[in-house]
Amino acid sequence: MIRAAIVGGSGYIGGELLRLLLCHPNIEVTQASSDRLRGQRVDTAHPNLRGRTDLAFCGRDELADSDVLLFATPHRATMDLLPKLADSARHVIDLSADFRLRDPWLYQQHYGVMHSAPELIDDFVPGLPELGHREALRTADRISVPGCMATAAILALAPIADLVEPEVTVDARTGSSGSGASASTADSHPQRSGAMRVFAPTGHRHEAEIGQATGLSARMTATGVEAVRGVQVVCQAQARNPLTELDLRRAYRAFYGTEPFVRVVAHRRGAFRYPDPKVLLGSNYCDVGFAVDGRRVTAMGALDNLVKGGAGAAVQCLNIRMGWPETLGLDFPGLHPI
Amino acid sequence: MIRAAIVGGSGYIGGELLRLLLCHPNIEVTQASSDRLRGQRVDTAHPNLRGRTDLAFCGRDELADSDVLLFATPHRATMDLLPKLADSARHVIDLSADFRLRDPWLYQQHYGVMHSAPELIDDFVPGLPELGHREALRTADRISVPGCMATAAILALAPIADLVEPEVTVDARTGSSGSGASASTADSHPQRSGAMRVFAPTGHRHEAEIGQATGLSARMTATGVEAVRGVQVVCQAQARNPLTELDLRRAYRAFYGTEPFVRVVAHRRGAFRYPDPKVLLGSNYCDVGFAVDGRRVTAMGALDNLVKGGAGAAVQCLNIRMGWPETLGLDFPGLHPI
Amino acid sequence: MIRAAIVGGSGYIGGELLRLLLCHPNIEVTQASSDRLRGQRVDTAHPNLRGRTDLAFCGRDELADSDVLLFATPHRATMDLLPKLADSARHVIDLSADFRLRDPWLYQQHYGVMHSAPELIDDFVPGLPELGHREALRTADRISVPGCMATAAILALAPIADLVEPEVTVDARTGSSGSGASASTADSHPQRSGAMRVFAPTGHRHEAEIGQATGLSARMTATGVEAVRGVQVVCQAQARNPLTELDLRRAYRAFYGTEPFVRVVAHRRGAFRYPDPKVLLGSNYCDVGFAVDGRRVTAMGALDNLVKGGAGAAVQCLNIRMGWPETLGLDFPGLHPI
Amino acid sequence: MIRAAIVGGSGYIGGELLRLLLCHPNIEVTQASSDRLRGQRVDTAHPNLRGRTDLAFCGRDELADSDVLLFATPHRATMDLLPKLADSARHVIDLSADFRLRDPWLYQQHYGVMHSAPELIDDFVPGLPELGHREALRTADRISVPGCMATAAILALAPIADLVEPEVTVDARTGSSGSGASASTADSHPQRSGAMRVFAPTGHRHEAEIGQATGLSARMTATGVEAVRGVQVVCQAQARNPLTELDLRRAYRAFYGTEPFVRVVAHRRGAFRYPDPKVLLGSNYCDVGFAVDGRRVTAMGALDNLVKGGAGAAVQCLNIRMGWPETLGLDFPGLHPI
Repeated sequence: MIRAAIVGGSGYIGGELLRLLLCHPNIEVTQASSDRLRGQRVDTAHPNLRGRTDLAFCGRDELADSDVLLFATPHRATMDLLPKLADSARHVIDLSADFRLRDPWLYQQHYGVMHSAPELIDDFVPGLPELGHREALRTADRISVPGCMATAAILALAPIADLVEPEVTVDARTGSSGSGASASTADSHPQRSGAMRVFAPTGHRHEAEIGQATGLSARMTATGVEAVRGVQVVCQAQARNPLTELDLRRAYRAFYGTEPFVRVVAHRRGAFRYPDPKVLLGSNYCDVGFAVDGRRVTAMGALDNLVKGGAGAAVQCLNIRMGWPETLGLDFPGLHPI
Repeated sequence: MIRAAIVGGSGYIGGELLRLLLCHPNIEVTQASSDRLRGQRVDTAHPNLRGRTDLAFCGRDELADSDVLLFATPHRATMDLLPKLADSARHVIDLSADFRLRDPWLYQQHYGVMHSAPELIDDFVPGLPELGHREALRTADRISVPGCMATAAILALAPIADLVEPEVTVDARTGSSGSGASASTADSHPQRSGAMRVFAPTGHRHEAEIGQATGLSARMTATGVEAVRGVQVVCQAQARNPLTELDLRRAYRAFYGTEPFVRVVAHRRGAFRYPDPKVLLGSNYCDVGFAVDGRRVTAMGALDNLVKGGAGAAVQCLNIRMGWPETLGLDFPGLHPI
Repeated sequence: MIRAAIVGGSGYIGGELLRLLLCHPNIEVTQASSDRLRGQRVDTAHPNLRGRTDLAFCGRDELADSDVLLFATPHRATMDLLPKLADSARHVIDLSADFRLRDPWLYQQHYGVMHSAPELIDDFVPGLPELGHREALRTADRISVPGCMATAAILALAPIADLVEPEVTVDARTGSSGSGASASTADSHPQRSGAMRVFAPTGHRHEAEIGQATGLSARMTATGVEAVRGVQVVCQAQARNPLTELDLRRAYRAFYGTEPFVRVVAHRRGAFRYPDPKVLLGSNYCDVGFAVDGRRVTAMGALDNLVKGGAGAAVQCLNIRMGWPETLGLDFPGLHPI
Repeated sequence: MIRAAIVGGSGYIGGELLRLLLCHPNIEVTQASSDRLRGQRVDTAHPNLRGRTDLAFCGRDELADSDVLLFATPHRATMDLLPKLADSARHVIDLSADFRLRDPWLYQQHYGVMHSAPELIDDFVPGLPELGHREALRTADRISVPGCMATAAILALAPIADLVEPEVTVDARTGSSGSGASASTADSHPQRSGAMRVFAPTGHRHEAEIGQATGLSARMTATGVEAVRGVQVVCQAQARNPLTELDLRRAYRAFYGTEPFVRVVAHRRGAFRYPDPKVLLGSNYCDVGFAVDGRRVTAMGALDNLVKGGAGAAVQCLNIRMGWPETLGLDFPGLHPI
């Protein structure tokens, strides 16, 4: 039993961490901080947890020592906060964007501010076991979980990165929970409901993560569609040589053969023959799929942005780090229909 | 061509007034006020009006004389505001709750504050032509439009008010636009989407309006369901004497025979055999229906809360007052499917 | 490890049984029948189960012996089918409506056909541990799971059944999955999306179950609202004597003190202060709540119709019958936001 | 007053034609055929039209002479049907795909069957006034309305067709009404609700139309998202020379300067700063917009697939043909919020 504490427990990623960790057999959640809701019960912010915990939010300054400290705090704020708090735990997992990019200059370019702790970046291992980081994660004490859209795109594209021209387009669609728990008129239900809102017509930040992980040059657009949870990417690429469906199936299977949380979904028929986040809500799966027509290759990925795109990936990495079964506490399969 | 000005033009009722009045052949919208968005184009708040108007919001203190002044301001604020501004227009239409209840004491009971202009209440004619107020509306210079849920319930129940015991239950369901345009966490898309949120388990304010208009004692509950627009009421009553379906059909037809905006919808089959706001969005209809089983009578009503439950009713009353065809500018039939 | 087989595995209740049983630590799913999809993989109908099972649907005539046989077949068909198949398993759990009502005459009245196996009805114990059936369930070999709306209404009303007048109104709202997996135009997405469809304005069948379980005379209406999963009931009752909020809180707490799957949700503030199925999707909770105003009492209940209103209740009863922890395999807490 | 008849009046495009034509001041709808619903009232299929018409569906063989005959029949069927019926009306407008492509070979490639009336194709003028066909439409007696996604993509891309490399990607998202009114399990509400369903990962049929109209080589993907109405396209292109935002704004304004139904929507801020079908439902607008980052150009388009993507475009063309104001009967501005 290890003790876990969460910094920033009142947001949606924080709530999902609480859900997963409270149900995890080897973990005791000792604290969750929220300066805004300090003193209030955790289940006032996360009503699904009623009856599961009597925990109340503490202030950030009240955080005591723990075995693992998870940061579900906003980007930009985290790089200032983490250095101050990191010593209170042996294992640190950051779910913000602040320690994802190796190159602090890239960070500045995409997040608009100079990185305040560049010397720490190299300590962090990417929380993406499927991209060859599993071995490093077994001993990592600083882990940085990748972005939700980036994870979907990276996992969709990685198996074909060597087979296609480096310029790819990535069209990402996302539910409203990706915008976080703070209220704004634009995110109110009447304004957001049923929208198809292009919020990044060129140059979404996750382009940099995709490039770093796959070597591809992604041209990314991002649109908010009607959903609360769920991210889907549809990527178009040009094959270096003509490819058949079988070529692609082999490439994906070879890449993900034994992965517990990546499923290759590319069927001939059926409403769910390609990756669709609808059947993944609450699960830690990232479904990936493909289609090909001569040299035109379409790669697709889908996940729940709060689970495999956030809290679930963190728990998966923690399982790896602790030497536990990788799927421990992550076996929820998703609901259908929902 | 008469000149119309709107006080409180940035909210959802204000936007709907703008939509209807800008398309109305006999009306010129001269001003719309919004202290918050003063100086900004009207179509920044109401993007559906792009290309329809170059109007910008004015401050409340910039409102000039007009022929008709429409108040789409919050309750409680309106009773203070209206007396100061009412002299600038011959015709005043209030869409807030402040001049709906004849009895200022009832107002205090339901709105929690003492009425600040009780001497004006009697000047207002209820904006409900179907309930016997059409004649009075022809000469009325002060009109008070009833509440959205109240309108649905009153129109559903009025034809049977004399046939049933006075104690009735009214279960109201409403979309999120009824909560207005101001952002709160509870109204954010992730929190509100897919909700079935009972916000008034006993004693909704509109009970008083229903009682005033029908003489019935309504026990009302209200729930927010997944929709942006739309109100539906399902009312249960006990017949004084056993009734047949034919009795009820006759009662509804007799009551609403020639009404342009009330349709009796009670069919034997079909997905839309009872009133459903889904087919009414944007239209000024209130559909009413009924079912009966011995002495058990169920009365139903549905409308678009921003149209027949607000802006559309206001325009309908204005048409009556000006001697124009009652349906002028209100002929949009709703969309299906949507 | 006991062997479970499902009759009627391709529908939504069948799929939910598969999800729960495949994840259950003490159960092996040996067979799932579907005459329509015979020979096809189970995960073609239930894409959330990809990677969880290689099971294919068998024909009904291919069902072999098992320890527990669960019927997720339609009402009317089940009473003919069950007697033929029941001998193949020691434990039989029926999720259809056919063995819920003690009185075959009531069945005929509500389901329109004569009961074909009335002699078996008395063998069935109601699958509602919270209503005093837990002891009987410990030894029951025939269990009949109650209807989804009935469960919500019964659990909402039972604590106050002795405190209120026997005539109550029950307004039920339900998602589209309650209509089952067969396609019809009325249930197509364009027609059903955003609907508020009153499909039972008087006399819903579950009235009989509510009456049988609580002794109350329920006047029930039922409406399909925009949701896939989820049932909510809002019940209005008249207290025999004036009641305070504290009286009600005590009554609910006394009734459900130690129940693992019923939570009393009646808070002073917050968007989720009353039962809302939105936070229950996938979970086996039934949340119940109340409000009171003098003699007017409103009782509310919410659940996931496929879980506590179906498959989850079946697993809960099986856990009780086998002497396992009642929550085994049922610990998923629901997601928020979703 | 001219007489209009509709072939295939029970589908969603047929219903929208009925809505627009019944409200059109210069048109009398004399007949609407539906072999399936022959004899039934038109408002049983289209409940929004209750109170607007007493028309009943006729059989196809009962169609009498009319001034304009509109085909809202399926592709493949229309090319057989139209030649038989076209003589009964001076003006024929086809809303199917069968007479859109100039090259019958392209048709065969995309629709999988040989064209059965290739000799008629040249008689048809494309129903796309904005692409230089307005003059031809003034005298056209055969008009073919383009596809919904094609219209959005063509109008989004046309202004920059000469400025970008010919290879563009087009990512299209669509609501469920695009699949038509026939029921299938995949289109049922539980299965389709909240889906992100990639149904054309490579090579959607509308690619051919886009190529024909713009000269660009479109690589198109299409996804069904949660919506009933609405199409949005996000297109990525590579500029031949670096472009500024101002260059693009000028290009779009020059192209669409006086168009009544195309709005250029590309603002610096606001939730609706790019084209979003949410604010267009029921309206005949196609909103187009753009963003640029060096040589990367993103072009966007949005419309209501049943209006500007179908029935509204047909009425617009008919207005042009008859010499009426182009916006006659098409002035509904859309609703916000919805």
